[in-house]
Amino acid sequence: MGVVTPPTDRTPKQDRSRATRRRLLEAAVACLAEHGWAGSTVSVVAERAGVSRGAAQHHFPTREDLFTAAVEYVAEERSAALRALPVQGRADVVAALVDLYTGPLFRAALQLWVAASNEAQLRPRVTELEARVGRETHRIAVELLAADETKPGVRETVQGLLDMARGLGLANVLTDDTARRRRVVAQWAALLEDALG
Amino acid sequence: MGVVTPPTDRTPKQDRSRATRRRLLEAAVACLAEHGWAGSTVSVVAERAGVSRGAAQHHFPTREDLFTAAVEYVAEERSAALRALPVQGRADVVAALVDLYTGPLFRAALQLWVAASNEAQLRPRVTELEARVGRETHRIAVELLAADETKPGVRETVQGLLDMARGLGLANVLTDDTARRRRVVAQWAALLEDALG
Repeated sequence: MGVVTPPTDRTPKQDRSRATRRRLLEAAVACLAEHGWAGSTVSVVAERAGVSRGAAQHHFPTREDLFTAAVEYVAEERSAALRALPVQGRADVVAALVDLYTGPLFRAALQLWVAASNEAQLRPRVTELEARVGRETHRIAVELLAADETKPGVRETVQGLLDMARGLGLANVLTDDTARRRRVVAQWAALLEDALG
Repeated sequence: MGVVTPPTDRTPKQDRSRATRRRLLEAAVACLAEHGWAGSTVSVVAERAGVSRGAAQHHFPTREDLFTAAVEYVAEERSAALRALPVQGRADVVAALVDLYTGPLFRAALQLWVAASNEAQLRPRVTELEARVGRETHRIAVELLAADETKPGVRETVQGLLDMARGLGLANVLTDDTARRRRVVAQWAALLEDALG
């Protein structure tokens, strides 16, 4: 999609394989968001993606492989979309950052975090994934907000904003919190504007 | 504990029943925090509390009754402890509020929220519980911070602070985030001081 490669680099077979992989990853995120870790098996995802169980296991040997890859893939897609946003005012950037934490990706990631807190097999992989995605999100936030991290307190200001975004995501899991969230985001965007100067 | 009632109001039998109930609730929170919803049954909790399964079911007819009551009980204990804190500066209040979202109660509540997002039977009860606990926490925060909610933006400022506290709690689920959290809290306590005036 949009990546230009010389024609000799990719065969129709490779294209099909890549498309299958993407269908599996997207089905895995949707499945995790809807049914949680306990209800998300490789078979359920394969069926949802319209792929045989054997083909799914060819791409992802274990359940842990599939679900950590899925959350990482979607997180990268989101980061790319965020980076591609036309640079607007800080209030719009704050709203776009908070949007990263509502919707199916956050729900899926949350299910994975919570499962990892109880499952030793999942924990190191999810911890590592969360750290990587967190660093990348922080980097994007600093850039889009034009925040100068050499000034004291600026780094922690941006971190706190992302913590708030995560908390707002959690508040949206059981109920539609959109109206309240808009008011909170508007107010904290104003506070942030003062803090970043 | 500390509640003075006329001697005729309580019999030794009632005292024992109350103590059993409390043991069950505390065991339920610990169990939920450690093993998640899938690993938390009435039998497991009864065994942990040293109570027979029949006695547990006498107090809590269903699994949903036991776990929602447990999260509510511990949330109330925490609110009472928070309200009893000697009133200090706002930085201390912010730190105490954030502390509500780390530790076993938050872990247990998180497990319950996430389970409720996938289980129709649990969802309405947990949604109602979360709304009630959220309103109460907001009320306590406004009081301890001496925030004047008649001023525009103050209500949303306090709400955003509690959202950040929830996000900081989530960041602490897989790893010990204490050092980073302290710096973020110190910085945002300073921003809040400016915002609340």
